[in-house]
Amino acid sequence: MSKQELTGIPMLEARSKEARAAILTMTTLAGCGHPGGSMSSIDILNCLYHTIRHDPKNPYMENRDRVVVSIGHISPAVYSILALTGYFPLEDAITGYRVLHSRYEGHIERELPGVEWTTGNLGQGLSAAVGMALAAKIKNSDARVYVLMGDGEQQKGQQAEARLMASKYQLNNLCAIVDYNRLQISGSINDVMPQNIRKSYEADGWMVMEVNGHDFRQILSTLEQARKQEKPVMILARTVMGKGVDFMENQHKYHGSALKPEQLEEALKQLGEPNRFEEYKALRAVTPFAPALALDEHFSLKTDLQAGQPIVYEEKTDNRSAWGAAIKDLGEINQAAQTPIAVFDCDLSGSVKTDGFAKAFPERFFQAGIMEHNTCVAAGAMSSCGIQTFWSDFGMFGAAEVYNMQRLNDINHANLKVVLTHAGIDVGEDGKTHQSIDYISLCRTLPGVRIILPADPNHTDRIIRWLIDKPGNYVVAMGRSKIPILKTDANQLMYPMDYSFEYGKADLLREGNQGCVLVCGTPVANTIKAVDTLREQGIFPKLYYISSPLSLERTLLEEIAKLGKVVTIEDHFIRGGLGTTLAERLAEEGLCARQLKIGVDKYAPSAPSDQLYQYFGMDAQSLIKSIGEWVQ
Amino acid sequence: MSKQELTGIPMLEARSKEARAAILTMTTLAGCGHPGGSMSSIDILNCLYHTIRHDPKNPYMENRDRVVVSIGHISPAVYSILALTGYFPLEDAITGYRVLHSRYEGHIERELPGVEWTTGNLGQGLSAAVGMALAAKIKNSDARVYVLMGDGEQQKGQQAEARLMASKYQLNNLCAIVDYNRLQISGSINDVMPQNIRKSYEADGWMVMEVNGHDFRQILSTLEQARKQEKPVMILARTVMGKGVDFMENQHKYHGSALKPEQLEEALKQLGEPNRFEEYKALRAVTPFAPALALDEHFSLKTDLQAGQPIVYEEKTDNRSAWGAAIKDLGEINQAAQTPIAVFDCDLSGSVKTDGFAKAFPERFFQAGIMEHNTCVAAGAMSSCGIQTFWSDFGMFGAAEVYNMQRLNDINHANLKVVLTHAGIDVGEDGKTHQSIDYISLCRTLPGVRIILPADPNHTDRIIRWLIDKPGNYVVAMGRSKIPILKTDANQLMYPMDYSFEYGKADLLREGNQGCVLVCGTPVANTIKAVDTLREQGIFPKLYYISSPLSLERTLLEEIAKLGKVVTIEDHFIRGGLGTTLAERLAEEGLCARQLKIGVDKYAPSAPSDQLYQYFGMDAQSLIKSIGEWVQ
Repeated sequence: MSKQELTGIPMLEARSKEARAAILTMTTLAGCGHPGGSMSSIDILNCLYHTIRHDPKNPYMENRDRVVVSIGHISPAVYSILALTGYFPLEDAITGYRVLHSRYEGHIERELPGVEWTTGNLGQGLSAAVGMALAAKIKNSDARVYVLMGDGEQQKGQQAEARLMASKYQLNNLCAIVDYNRLQISGSINDVMPQNIRKSYEADGWMVMEVNGHDFRQILSTLEQARKQEKPVMILARTVMGKGVDFMENQHKYHGSALKPEQLEEALKQLGEPNRFEEYKALRAVTPFAPALALDEHFSLKTDLQAGQPIVYEEKTDNRSAWGAAIKDLGEINQAAQTPIAVFDCDLSGSVKTDGFAKAFPERFFQAGIMEHNTCVAAGAMSSCGIQTFWSDFGMFGAAEVYNMQRLNDINHANLKVVLTHAGIDVGEDGKTHQSIDYISLCRTLPGVRIILPADPNHTDRIIRWLIDKPGNYVVAMGRSKIPILKTDANQLMYPMDYSFEYGKADLLREGNQGCVLVCGTPVANTIKAVDTLREQGIFPKLYYISSPLSLERTLLEEIAKLGKVVTIEDHFIRGGLGTTLAERLAEEGLCARQLKIGVDKYAPSAPSDQLYQYFGMDAQSLIKSIGEWVQ
Repeated sequence: MSKQELTGIPMLEARSKEARAAILTMTTLAGCGHPGGSMSSIDILNCLYHTIRHDPKNPYMENRDRVVVSIGHISPAVYSILALTGYFPLEDAITGYRVLHSRYEGHIERELPGVEWTTGNLGQGLSAAVGMALAAKIKNSDARVYVLMGDGEQQKGQQAEARLMASKYQLNNLCAIVDYNRLQISGSINDVMPQNIRKSYEADGWMVMEVNGHDFRQILSTLEQARKQEKPVMILARTVMGKGVDFMENQHKYHGSALKPEQLEEALKQLGEPNRFEEYKALRAVTPFAPALALDEHFSLKTDLQAGQPIVYEEKTDNRSAWGAAIKDLGEINQAAQTPIAVFDCDLSGSVKTDGFAKAFPERFFQAGIMEHNTCVAAGAMSSCGIQTFWSDFGMFGAAEVYNMQRLNDINHANLKVVLTHAGIDVGEDGKTHQSIDYISLCRTLPGVRIILPADPNHTDRIIRWLIDKPGNYVVAMGRSKIPILKTDANQLMYPMDYSFEYGKADLLREGNQGCVLVCGTPVANTIKAVDTLREQGIFPKLYYISSPLSLERTLLEEIAKLGKVVTIEDHFIRGGLGTTLAERLAEEGLCARQLKIGVDKYAPSAPSDQLYQYFGMDAQSLIKSIGEWVQ
């Protein structure tokens, strides 16, 4: 009876055998990779893809069950099982594994159909699964989310955060499986970092079930039982690293090293599978791959969300209140929309002003506690499920604390909107642990992330409305203080009702021809005061507001080069911010100008923000002097 | 009987009463701050400072017990109790609280004598305490370490990491106390993020004791019992937020808001304490403060460590092996030294090459598992206790994943040496989750952190030896591949036996006058090949190796400006790295040059590193073309 005709357990047995052969063959071909964990987890993956609701011919099917594989290094197992269930030809995966431009990368990447989340940094998958499970709840979908994890990565603190979040929201559509082979790179998990994994999950309110991770009947029946629980379930699957090949079993050195061709020969004999190494090797040498696409048609967020009517501010207020009012209004006018809006908070909604949205839409507001790492990933994963997702936090916690999580969202083509308040030394007395002075610099090395700094409450309102139907990852950063409504020199609103935001466009605040001044963020009001005073003194620097400090147009750079002298002012560390972008871009364009950078040049003391701005020369008086002397 | 004559419990009662009055007075004076948690924790702090081994007149006494306060926002409580136990006059704290340049900052800062660790970002204190407790073990000291934490911050995943580490090393000199007032900023901890704190600690192998956090006798006797345990103890102290003033008790709004003067009057009446608000207010207005010193005489690491004899490499090898050999050798030659050397690992010692040190000095090697956040802080805290501490990890995990923890070490004037291997796309097939292309950019916004990139194995050996007696925080970043031994054009070793490293100095690799080439990191070998080929073609660019990509001397910049054209080459994202420093520094110095930046301009695919270098134009052939065209 041929493989194709097999069903049930015999089919699963044949599939695992073939997958094991593929795992060993592709890693030996590449001369690297992670066969050990691939062999211990393959039977679990095999059962999972046998039971979930999915369609290999329509991998982005709405309402599908999702499988997140947190241990991205077991890519050979993932590729094998996806191929054997019909996502793509197995031969492609074997010959393409770790080959330049193929999608069969060293760690699983979302660009490959069937892969729901790019992983490789450990301890991230459970958070992503929590975000996807919450997304299913929002959409009233009965889709389930599964996450396969390693035992070593349970050490990661983010796991504990994700466990609490899953438990708080009683995610009965979430099933976690731990490949419990008891080995990590350095040896036994009990030697590296002793942990009672079962007790940790139980302490955090999960139901735990145990199975033999190589017994198909047990795995299938346990997955079935897990469906019936009213809380998140973790299945602790006892497995054997290198399972199926005697000399590999329980050898931690095979976590990250491939077999030599002669060992492969012996291993395939033991598995009773043919050795097609030479044949694949020949194919591998000639297979060309095109650079992978981002598959934006599948990843990009398509929304039917409306921007509504701007709220016009005439009175001095803080940008965070304008952000809070805008998101609440957007929630209300879009109640009938297909695309849900969700907001995450980390125990600061009163300060970041999302409390209005929280009261109006409790089922779309997620209080995630003091758990920024989990929140950033869970919110990012939710935003990849057709939900316009916002997370608002202080600059320090939404940027510095979660830099790598934002990077993972970027790699994953997520659609998260992170709204940072209390950015810069404007946070004042809370001192250096709370003074976020690197939010621009951190976004600089995230190629897909765009950062926007609103100038005043009207600008904030327009920017949030502009964002509401945008795909992709954005950071919007604002200070804490109340700031005046910006006016043109004709005393009109700088950002009136009909203003429409454009990313990367510089806003001319004051015309002039004696040097150029670029300002972003909270110091804008002091800068306008300073420039207006200089104008009264007959000194006319040209003044621009820069809302996109990582994106400066060539036309602006040419103008600056022509004017010859330029001053940048920012509530940010003097290196890595707007002043740095200007220097970078001038150099890139082969242009030159004498540049004065005004900003924060050391960790700031704890004091009211107006005193700190004075200390760093960003009060109006200091700016009159420094700008005046520089541009003349 | 006067306060001064009181002893025992009556003295503690009087002290808490006076401290509560001080807490409320200083927050009302500042018009902000965190009185609620200060009032709930003051009795615990009072008992702690009554029992620990310390000397307020000699706050940096060797062998003292240490108290880490993880909830930095309860600074009013910390300042009050430190003052009342004799560290400084209470009046200074009350009038200086949150005043510019005073040391009584919004969150506690290590610059203030009596404060062991700067906190404010929650969830960090337990990791710091673990590092200090391990340091005491290394020094065979009987000193104990106490850490006071909040209940809300228990949600932070890093807490779980620190719990496991404390448990693995059976830290019986560590006692944690949780101020269990059951409230966080947004309300009840059970609403914000339900968690069974007791079970979490017990699951991770801790002993848990419960007390009434306002009952001095209970607290004192429990602290006494805790001393006798053979494992880490967590004391869950049931307390009342705002304790002592009826209208403040159990009101979460007082977590972060001060009383109005009229409320203060009423509160002080209830406490039976005099109201000196107006008097302090007058003093506050006139008290001038000088900028705080870093107190380097206390923070700076003083060592008697010897650099030993360099290891000279003649054969191509990888820098990480040279790092591993150097640290093992330094361990051996310094066995009799007063200053211990310690090395931390996160389950990668075989790859980062610290396994040699681990075998030779198991009691100085700390296998911290897959827990980078805890490791970075614990190692940083250990380095603040007179131990030359190294932590080696992959670039992605030692930089991007722990950016904020490195920032906290920087703020804390720690002395941690982070040695990053597998930096850049040199990691190859492991793909974008493992390709660290931001390690320079991340250090750019850490004013106190210095980053060094060794050029070859000889350079690596000299740099690690140079570092062995240096105080401060350093990052040393290197790739994964074997790289050739660099030679001068006279075919001598570029970094011979007698070479001595100098931070910030550019190394001239090839003399020339047709433009300038700056290279850092792994691409140096390809760059030398390219330049040597160009020289054969009669094109002579001047070639420098830049080992300190955040520090470029003015003399070098002047030379570059004179040459007019410059190329930067780095295994780093094209923005934020060496090319950016050059642009920044030229702009700062008012100099100009036409700059070509060669590096990584997008997330890289998964492939062997030589193919990736070719893909990004950093192979010798591509460099011959790009450099040749640019400098002519």
